[in-house]
Amino acid sequence: MTILTDDERELQSSVRSFLTKKVAPLVAEHERNRTFPWEIVPALHDFGYVRGLVHPDDGGDGISYSQLAILMEEAGRCWGSLRTTMNILTIVPYLISQVGSPEQKARFLPPLLSGERRAWFAMTEPDAGSDAASLRTTAHLDGDHYVLSGSKVYITNASHADIGIVMATVDRSAGAKGITAFIVDRAESDYEVNDIPHMPVRGTSSCELVFTGTRVPKENVLGEVGRGLSAAMKAINVGRLNMSMGAVGLSQAALEESIKFVTTREQFGKKLGEFQLVQEMVVEIATLTETSRLLGMNAARVLDRGEPARMECSMAKYYCGESVNKAATLALQVHGGAGLMEESPVERIFRDAREATIPEGTSQIQILQMGRELIGVSSLR
Amino acid sequence: MTILTDDERELQSSVRSFLTKKVAPLVAEHERNRTFPWEIVPALHDFGYVRGLVHPDDGGDGISYSQLAILMEEAGRCWGSLRTTMNILTIVPYLISQVGSPEQKARFLPPLLSGERRAWFAMTEPDAGSDAASLRTTAHLDGDHYVLSGSKVYITNASHADIGIVMATVDRSAGAKGITAFIVDRAESDYEVNDIPHMPVRGTSSCELVFTGTRVPKENVLGEVGRGLSAAMKAINVGRLNMSMGAVGLSQAALEESIKFVTTREQFGKKLGEFQLVQEMVVEIATLTETSRLLGMNAARVLDRGEPARMECSMAKYYCGESVNKAATLALQVHGGAGLMEESPVERIFRDAREATIPEGTSQIQILQMGRELIGVSSLR
Amino acid sequence: MTILTDDERELQSSVRSFLTKKVAPLVAEHERNRTFPWEIVPALHDFGYVRGLVHPDDGGDGISYSQLAILMEEAGRCWGSLRTTMNILTIVPYLISQVGSPEQKARFLPPLLSGERRAWFAMTEPDAGSDAASLRTTAHLDGDHYVLSGSKVYITNASHADIGIVMATVDRSAGAKGITAFIVDRAESDYEVNDIPHMPVRGTSSCELVFTGTRVPKENVLGEVGRGLSAAMKAINVGRLNMSMGAVGLSQAALEESIKFVTTREQFGKKLGEFQLVQEMVVEIATLTETSRLLGMNAARVLDRGEPARMECSMAKYYCGESVNKAATLALQVHGGAGLMEESPVERIFRDAREATIPEGTSQIQILQMGRELIGVSSLR
Amino acid sequence: MTILTDDERELQSSVRSFLTKKVAPLVAEHERNRTFPWEIVPALHDFGYVRGLVHPDDGGDGISYSQLAILMEEAGRCWGSLRTTMNILTIVPYLISQVGSPEQKARFLPPLLSGERRAWFAMTEPDAGSDAASLRTTAHLDGDHYVLSGSKVYITNASHADIGIVMATVDRSAGAKGITAFIVDRAESDYEVNDIPHMPVRGTSSCELVFTGTRVPKENVLGEVGRGLSAAMKAINVGRLNMSMGAVGLSQAALEESIKFVTTREQFGKKLGEFQLVQEMVVEIATLTETSRLLGMNAARVLDRGEPARMECSMAKYYCGESVNKAATLALQVHGGAGLMEESPVERIFRDAREATIPEGTSQIQILQMGRELIGVSSLR
Repeated sequence: MTILTDDERELQSSVRSFLTKKVAPLVAEHERNRTFPWEIVPALHDFGYVRGLVHPDDGGDGISYSQLAILMEEAGRCWGSLRTTMNILTIVPYLISQVGSPEQKARFLPPLLSGERRAWFAMTEPDAGSDAASLRTTAHLDGDHYVLSGSKVYITNASHADIGIVMATVDRSAGAKGITAFIVDRAESDYEVNDIPHMPVRGTSSCELVFTGTRVPKENVLGEVGRGLSAAMKAINVGRLNMSMGAVGLSQAALEESIKFVTTREQFGKKLGEFQLVQEMVVEIATLTETSRLLGMNAARVLDRGEPARMECSMAKYYCGESVNKAATLALQVHGGAGLMEESPVERIFRDAREATIPEGTSQIQILQMGRELIGVSSLR
Repeated sequence: MTILTDDERELQSSVRSFLTKKVAPLVAEHERNRTFPWEIVPALHDFGYVRGLVHPDDGGDGISYSQLAILMEEAGRCWGSLRTTMNILTIVPYLISQVGSPEQKARFLPPLLSGERRAWFAMTEPDAGSDAASLRTTAHLDGDHYVLSGSKVYITNASHADIGIVMATVDRSAGAKGITAFIVDRAESDYEVNDIPHMPVRGTSSCELVFTGTRVPKENVLGEVGRGLSAAMKAINVGRLNMSMGAVGLSQAALEESIKFVTTREQFGKKLGEFQLVQEMVVEIATLTETSRLLGMNAARVLDRGEPARMECSMAKYYCGESVNKAATLALQVHGGAGLMEESPVERIFRDAREATIPEGTSQIQILQMGRELIGVSSLR
Repeated sequence: MTILTDDERELQSSVRSFLTKKVAPLVAEHERNRTFPWEIVPALHDFGYVRGLVHPDDGGDGISYSQLAILMEEAGRCWGSLRTTMNILTIVPYLISQVGSPEQKARFLPPLLSGERRAWFAMTEPDAGSDAASLRTTAHLDGDHYVLSGSKVYITNASHADIGIVMATVDRSAGAKGITAFIVDRAESDYEVNDIPHMPVRGTSSCELVFTGTRVPKENVLGEVGRGLSAAMKAINVGRLNMSMGAVGLSQAALEESIKFVTTREQFGKKLGEFQLVQEMVVEIATLTETSRLLGMNAARVLDRGEPARMECSMAKYYCGESVNKAATLALQVHGGAGLMEESPVERIFRDAREATIPEGTSQIQILQMGRELIGVSSLR
Repeated sequence: MTILTDDERELQSSVRSFLTKKVAPLVAEHERNRTFPWEIVPALHDFGYVRGLVHPDDGGDGISYSQLAILMEEAGRCWGSLRTTMNILTIVPYLISQVGSPEQKARFLPPLLSGERRAWFAMTEPDAGSDAASLRTTAHLDGDHYVLSGSKVYITNASHADIGIVMATVDRSAGAKGITAFIVDRAESDYEVNDIPHMPVRGTSSCELVFTGTRVPKENVLGEVGRGLSAAMKAINVGRLNMSMGAVGLSQAALEESIKFVTTREQFGKKLGEFQLVQEMVVEIATLTETSRLLGMNAARVLDRGEPARMECSMAKYYCGESVNKAATLALQVHGGAGLMEESPVERIFRDAREATIPEGTSQIQILQMGRELIGVSSLR
């Protein structure tokens, strides 16, 4: 339905085919065990995951945002945990290629782009989710190292990765202007990682990171001291686009599972799909999916024009996040009792969908940012 | 936000500018008096209204569905009654040019395309709204005339127009296969028109038509006898597209009025727009508008590819219709007591929006048609 | 369904029967003409309207809030304009009996309670809807008169009534503590009344009042100077209860009209009521109506216990107001095109319902007041 | 807010206090381990759980439905798994006391009422969820035993209990009139139990039961042969009431957790509870909770009058089930990332809430049953 170019259709078709054959059969077991099939990741690089946003000069593929959007939809359609993992593995090299020094690129990009090493990204703190300027993790200079103290929460896959970007302030009194980005390499810096069990995306970990006097070499500052937020902002619209399209993929999966179910199960001597109330739920899922996809793809195309697309990405993140929650709870309802069982894909889709309104700015934050754009005044403070 | 081509942007901008200057200032008074400024219509033909869908060989403009979509959004943004009127004035010549005989085209198209005469279209009956195959208006052959008996309801502008297309059955026992389309010219055929006051689109009339032995010349059968539904079906997706984009236009107007209001009115010593709950309502309107527009424009582009776009037009009609109702009631809420006053544009927008879920197939009919497409079985009978 | 006492059932039944016989047949014509059958009002006093809340010592009936709730539901079920009119005619004598001086009671209550004269109440101003402390209408003492200057908006029935209570400030710098209530008698004080056409409750007028040097005798101060808000607050919970139950009545009417329609109209060879999607809409209306009624009645019973019931009345106003909008738009949808015609009761119900979320505190104001109660901090300023 | 009698308030207060002290501290660990603290159950009997609905002549407490409703709300407020377990432990003795023979009562009630043994109830099958008349589990007489063949799904706690009631048909061609209820005692009858992991209520098991030639003594027929559905129907309204009030309890817990969170957590230098968008979510949860409670308590009071309360219980089940899903997802949103962690009570509440629209008749089934009551015709077949 959503109009794509022929090249985009081909990309979609080839990645969908690969994921269906190679990844989908592994999902149930990894979901049950809360593990991830890391061995399949390198093969995914060839489609544009991980390498996609990095400029060809830096060893990447330089794909369009529209292509990225399709990759993220397909990852989400296959498995929420895959989409979440691909997102973070794609964002960190992108940031390093965007603001890293030649030395940082030379050191960190090759192992990340080859899949030899994996990355995490740490901004959020217990009392600073959406309010990045209030970070409490501090970094003070001690000789040729910065010493980091503080803790971070909800850090995706930090227990499975060993190169990270961490945001800390070199001067809490400076607000946003103290925030600095550091590349932390576990091989040289010591920090604590606690894997905190969470409801959605069980194939990923959501970690608490504790820095107590963690020493990071000065040359690991990513971009300039005090310009960390500006570096992070480069990734924020991409992150929102990725979450939006991941949500579209989950919705699409919810739709396909529902159609499969209602065309096979019976009640009262009819196929479920013959009841109007069931058709209505399926149609509602389809409509949520299609409007979400159109919004996400339009945001990608605006990014491809070189525009900031702040409003478009914010609206996509908001709408796709809310919509996949509605789509997933409807799909579960379509399945009745069967949908509550862990052996059902919709049980997983329902849990995975629930995070879509939270990271990369909650729905409330998106509303307030769009409100400021539309009305010209902030109502946040 | 929605990506348009440069030509489309230019069309949008020129028609918006014209409507804002020439039509918008007339709306309040005509709305109050339940009249319509018919004198402005011919100037609108030059933008593609009325003539747009007719092939250039038949004296039309042959514009794309995407252009038509933009025209309908702009008409709706200016005034619901304008959109409704432009729709019916555009659809009837389209049908005649699609299935009319050379003689019919020669006789009826010139006065319609010049704006000299105006048209209505009559399908719906009291007990056959969505169920076209059950029409009770009959036509029996008597010499070289058909004699029509029955009545039609909700016929837009029948009191302001004198060339009409009416659907009647030549054989009730034949179901859909008896339905035949007739061109009725008031100059030669007699029928009764009752203007029934209605809530929305007050610049139009919604009429009951009564045929009691109305004689229509045989040569006025449009297309073949018994193939009337097939003729009407040609217009159904266009009609749905037009209603969808008209709804988008109303939503857009609701958004603009709301932003204007909240950036000027104060409560508790602040501009209304500084309150989070107000921002949320405005953002919700913007999101409903944008998702609707993307869905409508995508449907238009699928039609432009020559595909039937049944699913796309049905989904657009459903979603845009439901959404404009939400957007309009939110916009009224943003205005508080001021929004309830007839002097407020949102009062009109709210009433006009209410019809968007009803003609051209109610939301329920759209759901059941989409359900059948998705699931492969009808739940209607 | 909602449990009532036997006495309450009897009251409900007798007032419903009276209104159905004597008022319902008049509604269509008065609605069309924007008039009100004032001649029927005195007979309504015997059920408890107008006199109900006034203490028997002052010539009233001293009914319970639960009885009042039933009266308001029945008025709303019959005709939105009747409920609105009964509300204001009931509130003003209540306020005079609560805080009026013996002289004021002796002068104003008898004509109001007999129906000989009628009352209006004026608080709202263009820039002070929900923010009563910011009123801009001023009153300054000049000899033994106060001189009023300013304007009020959305004043129900001011064009049909000649005794009013108007809130004005004797000292704008004092904020809430300057607000004073005045009884204004048109027989002795001059002011301008402009009837501004509005969408809902067409049997009432919604007026602008302009005071330009209006002289009001000192002895007409209602309660104490500077204590006007405190007087008005006495009526606020009752006003909210009345609006809530009026909304329940409209919902109930929407339900009854819908059931009547779907058990008679046919589509596709079936009664409309045989389609699942139609049943769903009717059930949704019933559920909205019943939850609203339970919330309103529970608030009334808490008031009857002598508790302030601020939270209960606020929640009822919020929920019943939002719900009747949903119920009315569903009922209109159930009716399809027929529901858009002014001859249909649901067309009127739909318009009347739309005001339910606005006066006596918009839904947004209710949310913020409940929020403060629940969370302990205001988010309004 | 909801008006209760003094006795009801006292019951509520004492059971809440007990559960808070004795059960709440155990929840997190059992939830994590998917276990249940069976040792606490006997103490709960003294409040009316398990014994409540059994007539005092049969060793029960004979409490009112209103009291039962309060017990179920409090259980749900404490822990969804507790409510689910208390429901089934309460329903089975109730059924035995209602339709059991003196011998059955003498044999089965004492161990169940003392807590020495535990019960399950098995109706649902893979292709017969809401459609009880189509059960495929068969029972044929073989000497003085019935031989059962078939399988059941979603049977609560069958792996933790050893006395069950199972519905089977003695004659599939007889439809509803073949359905018969059997008491199955694991001590004398052999069947297979498979615990299927499920998302909600992790302290309970949801089991598949497989009967392959299971022999049940003839005297274990509960009630009459062919009258099993009529026996089950006795419990259906109670089951719906119990689920409704359990949902209210979960909503209440969601509300309390949310208020606690927003009054302690900060963002942007303010308590979360100071933001309007946060207050709105909390108010919405409170409103959903209160309307649900009023609907559930009203249904209980109608049952206490001796009326069947079919409509009331169906509406409560529908509305409370849908509402707790909205309340729980809002509460999770209020918590942001913290709400996704398994250590957060709202993560559990969110999962537990999800089943509320499914057992005891899905929301769709409730809609169709209410639709039939309101409109007078079934749209189910």
